Amino acid sequence: MTGEASIAHAAWLPPEALRAVASRRVLVMSDGMLAETAAQEIARAVAHHGGSLHRAADGGPFDLVLALTSADGLPDAAAMALAELDWRAGQDMLGAEGFALGRRDGVTVVLADGPAGLLYGLFHVVRLGEAAFGASLPIEVHCPVTARRMLNHWDNIDTHPVMGQVERGYSGGSIFWRDGGLTPDLGRVRAYARLLASIGVNAVTVNNVNVHATEAHLLTDRLGDVAALADVLRPYGIRTHLSVNFNSPAALGGLRTADPLDDGVRAWWADTTRQVYAAIPDFGGYVVKADSEGQPGPFGYGRTHADGANTLAAALAPFGGVVHWRAFVYNHTQDWRDRSTDRARAAYDHFAPLDGHFAGNVILQVKYGPIDFQTREPVSPVIAAMPGTRLAVELQVTQEYTGQQRHVCYLGPLWHEVLAFEPWGGGRTVAAVAAGRHADNGLTGFEGGLVAVSNVGDDPFWTGHPLAQANLYAFGRLAWNPHLDPAAVLGEWIDLTFTPAATADPGLLRRTLHEVMDDSWQTYESYTAPLGVGFMVRPGSHYGPDVDGYEYTPWGTYHFADRDGIGVDRTRATGTGFTGQYPQPWAQVYESAASCPDELLLFFHHVPYTHVLHSGKTVVQHIYDTHFEGADRVARMRSRWAGLAGLVAPDVDARVRERLDEQSRCAQEWRDQINTYFYRKSGIPDAHGRRIH
Amino acid sequence: MTGEASIAHAAWLPPEALRAVASRRVLVMSDGMLAETAAQEIARAVAHHGGSLHRAADGGPFDLVLALTSADGLPDAAAMALAELDWRAGQDMLGAEGFALGRRDGVTVVLADGPAGLLYGLFHVVRLGEAAFGASLPIEVHCPVTARRMLNHWDNIDTHPVMGQVERGYSGGSIFWRDGGLTPDLGRVRAYARLLASIGVNAVTVNNVNVHATEAHLLTDRLGDVAALADVLRPYGIRTHLSVNFNSPAALGGLRTADPLDDGVRAWWADTTRQVYAAIPDFGGYVVKADSEGQPGPFGYGRTHADGANTLAAALAPFGGVVHWRAFVYNHTQDWRDRSTDRARAAYDHFAPLDGHFAGNVILQVKYGPIDFQTREPVSPVIAAMPGTRLAVELQVTQEYTGQQRHVCYLGPLWHEVLAFEPWGGGRTVAAVAAGRHADNGLTGFEGGLVAVSNVGDDPFWTGHPLAQANLYAFGRLAWNPHLDPAAVLGEWIDLTFTPAATADPGLLRRTLHEVMDDSWQTYESYTAPLGVGFMVRPGSHYGPDVDGYEYTPWGTYHFADRDGIGVDRTRATGTGFTGQYPQPWAQVYESAASCPDELLLFFHHVPYTHVLHSGKTVVQHIYDTHFEGADRVARMRSRWAGLAGLVAPDVDARVRERLDEQSRCAQEWRDQINTYFYRKSGIPDAHGRRIH
Repeated sequence: MTGEASIAHAAWLPPEALRAVASRRVLVMSDGMLAETAAQEIARAVAHHGGSLHRAADGGPFDLVLALTSADGLPDAAAMALAELDWRAGQDMLGAEGFALGRRDGVTVVLADGPAGLLYGLFHVVRLGEAAFGASLPIEVHCPVTARRMLNHWDNIDTHPVMGQVERGYSGGSIFWRDGGLTPDLGRVRAYARLLASIGVNAVTVNNVNVHATEAHLLTDRLGDVAALADVLRPYGIRTHLSVNFNSPAALGGLRTADPLDDGVRAWWADTTRQVYAAIPDFGGYVVKADSEGQPGPFGYGRTHADGANTLAAALAPFGGVVHWRAFVYNHTQDWRDRSTDRARAAYDHFAPLDGHFAGNVILQVKYGPIDFQTREPVSPVIAAMPGTRLAVELQVTQEYTGQQRHVCYLGPLWHEVLAFEPWGGGRTVAAVAAGRHADNGLTGFEGGLVAVSNVGDDPFWTGHPLAQANLYAFGRLAWNPHLDPAAVLGEWIDLTFTPAATADPGLLRRTLHEVMDDSWQTYESYTAPLGVGFMVRPGSHYGPDVDGYEYTPWGTYHFADRDGIGVDRTRATGTGFTGQYPQPWAQVYESAASCPDELLLFFHHVPYTHVLHSGKTVVQHIYDTHFEGADRVARMRSRWAGLAGLVAPDVDARVRERLDEQSRCAQEWRDQINTYFYRKSGIPDAHGRRIH
Repeated sequence: MTGEASIAHAAWLPPEALRAVASRRVLVMSDGMLAETAAQEIARAVAHHGGSLHRAADGGPFDLVLALTSADGLPDAAAMALAELDWRAGQDMLGAEGFALGRRDGVTVVLADGPAGLLYGLFHVVRLGEAAFGASLPIEVHCPVTARRMLNHWDNIDTHPVMGQVERGYSGGSIFWRDGGLTPDLGRVRAYARLLASIGVNAVTVNNVNVHATEAHLLTDRLGDVAALADVLRPYGIRTHLSVNFNSPAALGGLRTADPLDDGVRAWWADTTRQVYAAIPDFGGYVVKADSEGQPGPFGYGRTHADGANTLAAALAPFGGVVHWRAFVYNHTQDWRDRSTDRARAAYDHFAPLDGHFAGNVILQVKYGPIDFQTREPVSPVIAAMPGTRLAVELQVTQEYTGQQRHVCYLGPLWHEVLAFEPWGGGRTVAAVAAGRHADNGLTGFEGGLVAVSNVGDDPFWTGHPLAQANLYAFGRLAWNPHLDPAAVLGEWIDLTFTPAATADPGLLRRTLHEVMDDSWQTYESYTAPLGVGFMVRPGSHYGPDVDGYEYTPWGTYHFADRDGIGVDRTRATGTGFTGQYPQPWAQVYESAASCPDELLLFFHHVPYTHVLHSGKTVVQHIYDTHFEGADRVARMRSRWAGLAGLVAPDVDARVRERLDEQSRCAQEWRDQINTYFYRKSGIPDAHGRRIH
């Protein structure tokens, strides 16, 4: 390790969060790197809170025991717990990452089949706090629903003069790269790994999916820097992945082609990958954005995406690596005059026909919606279309289209809604598809994953907006268990992050944070693009309103507002036919404006401004009402936060206030631009006579 | 001189253009730097075309004599011409830059009171070509109408990652600055100076009016680079000026203020200016953009712009220098919801009350229109509002809003219209105001000027689009003589630039260029923002259509289109009152929609789409018609150019074709976006049923 950790906010793991564990006598019975990480975590904390760490069972009694199920000489309470566990379920049910937790005889016990489970179990005890040491706890098993829980970093080594160092990053520069190379501040990377381990994230890519010239070399001559990062991430159970440029055999290898079916190209990938594993034996694999927004891909050689992905997969297979192959492929030079092309259709049209053609270690990485991380989209039909393909669902923690960490927008409810969506109307959910449980062929190891674009940078608060830390937290927690209630997850984050003040109303802080954050996604939606129509943001920056900003561009993101109505007709009957990409019942639900959910109406239908929603309001009155209300809600958010004066650390308070001021200004701007735009177009006055400019 | 001239197109002075002069016997009777420049020009050319250069009258007979009126021993023809001139007008009528030209006894004679006149006279003979050596020519006097004919370069030393090196430059990098310092290619600067001398430009600023950190130092520790440029420009009769940052006393001088009334600040400007003149004895003066679009200015110290300008003027006065003080001051953080603020009013509101308060060596530099170099604007009322102030009128040769040198847009007709405009309805024109003839106090030396932002860069064709050279040419010619017919000026440029081919139709080239270029400004206007409403360009780049792009921004450039109508109400009766800034008759003409010229209707009035223009068409039908027609006209331009195959140098032909392809694409894009926008908004179909998307 070189350098020291920069001064960063402790996020949800301040010393206070570990008080319950670290003021007690703790036994860790396991060897191995991850158990050592757990032990060190405890050692640091007990030094602060007065407890003690023990590595052998003869030093008891203990308050907390973390032990492998295979350990000899378990203390009595642990042995009792293990027996109960065996009785309930037999051996090996915990897997590599799961753990069992219970309290017997005044001892809290964490059991795991492997050291990763012990580390995750430790952080679970931290989350429980004093509740882990109270009355008897039944033995509960905690296994991740999704085996692959990955964060993609869109970090570059070089800094772009406009986009900054992190593409769509709103939290300063990269924590991995600085001054044209590896950061000297690996302590910051370690602190990040610790945070990720505490929420169960087990894979990270360390560079942007748009792989530029400098970053392409991470695969070859800059591989040492990747290995150095992997060394820091490894003790926290995190495997390192790399975004690679499909054109690498030509650009880096000097070959005359990157054709995936060319023998030389295959050999280059095989050889290059062998060298990667020589440097990083537990390397996770590649992430590829191909034939997308200017990135090279197999289309350039007349090959399919299966050809492309499988060539990289073959190189990785001997080492157990995977290819995350992104399904975000569409025509970004569309003619806005062409109403037959529908960007929403693109991923399905490209990939559904390839189902069954991908190698077993290819994971197709599909954005949750058919467009691009909008505040409101239907779930992508690709997720239901590829039973013979491993799928990962991609979320966006970085708030590109949801306020860019200048607006409070807690995304847990959005992700929960996506993950709980039932593409076939019942039974399997998106979360189950991502977990891989949908595999019809009964193969094990057919797991998919949940992936998200990280929102972290070298900002002192990690995420620009201190409250945006909650999104990172929620992603990890929901990836581990999509069934968690997002409000409860937010509650965990609040309790870990903020120390309750000794005031007349000790619940004020928690209650206020819930009031500010619980519904903040719906609040954001209410003052931005209405009824699922999407975009209406400033081109380029994607921040702030510009109703027609993308309307006449090549990007395929249109709303088609005219003096009579608005929306995109994606029906089979009269539109682009996109609704036909869904299985029933959704194909039918979305096809009819009568049955289409209000919040997605304009995504699927072009309707008059006078169309009456299920809510009983006309579309245009809904627009006025939600936008007035949305700006008012932000004003209330701001005054609620002001009520916390003195209860929050001054630096956090100052940053949040500054951001709330901007959110308030921006929400009013959205309100006024949207309302004015639709009033000018429709000529229909607000039923309540409020001021429209 | 260091370095060699880069390979650049010869523009309008290819060797062929000098054939008529340089195949003859030429006498130059004058000493001094500018006469030497003329002599060298001839010497180089005769070496190519077989004529001869003589410096003494005893080597006759001659075909062409260039002589000072004060010369002893003039050849007979010249003496005759001088006698005629004296008889007609007495001595000293030619001034420092004028010349007389005539042909007597088979000798063409140019007489001047000073060497600058000889240089300008030489280039006039070059323009005349063989016509200068034909039948007898009457003695004609040519004096510049406007004494100050200046180009502003918005060149930076540093290269901005988005804006490039030249702000609003569309012709590559700077010809003055390269790699963070003075260009090593001073030969290119010399070639530029020669072109400027040939069109009578006599002043240049060498850096951007937005003076950034690096460029601020040109005033002090980088002054040597300015002096080096001045050395190259001087032999061509061009004085060097510098854009300076108003905050320089603080930023460069380390003072605690830049308050123009502070004694230390005054002393700093005086001392700094003294050092400038020590390095550049004929330095022209400063150009200042103050309190404008983020630049510092006197407002920051609670002072007026007269205070600010006069402080700099006082520093320059002892050396005969002037301050060009830009009147482009407005609120660029306007709230679009605020309909009472009108950017068009700003310059008048700020400056008219200061008339009479500016020092005698301050020249207020006023953009020709009240907004910002739009394709169509009314003439700025400031031009008529300040009889006690020296005024320069600023034009924009660089095509920021007129196609960015990707579109053919010959601006001569626009400038001619502006210069010929009569602010008081009769008598004095804008050109007369710029010339300074309006001075009520009868003072001599009260001259104003014509200034333009240059369109030149280090592009091989100087101006990106080879045909955009004509704009640079026309600016110089119209600045010298605003009464020239812009089509005739274009004809001069064509004849100088293109060598007629020996084809069956020798006039084809000239005829085609006139067809392509003569009306290209109106063509550009026809497919872009209609009826004087302005903007509708992409924010930032200002290229291509985006109807609402500036509609909800802080820039004060709105069209207020709704489902019923469009335009900005700037009347006194119901609008912003801007029409009241004009003297009669315009105050009344513009006030009424009935009398307002069609082409400015939407600049001054908000009218229904069904409003009937003087042309008999409704506004919306006018929009449809002009946009269909405009795109068609560009298509015809393109096919006309294609008809020149083989008659134009291949590199010029290739570049022009590439640009015409883009112009054609872009004109169709404008047509479709504008028509679609107004169809969607108005719901009124095209009377001719053409395709609107």
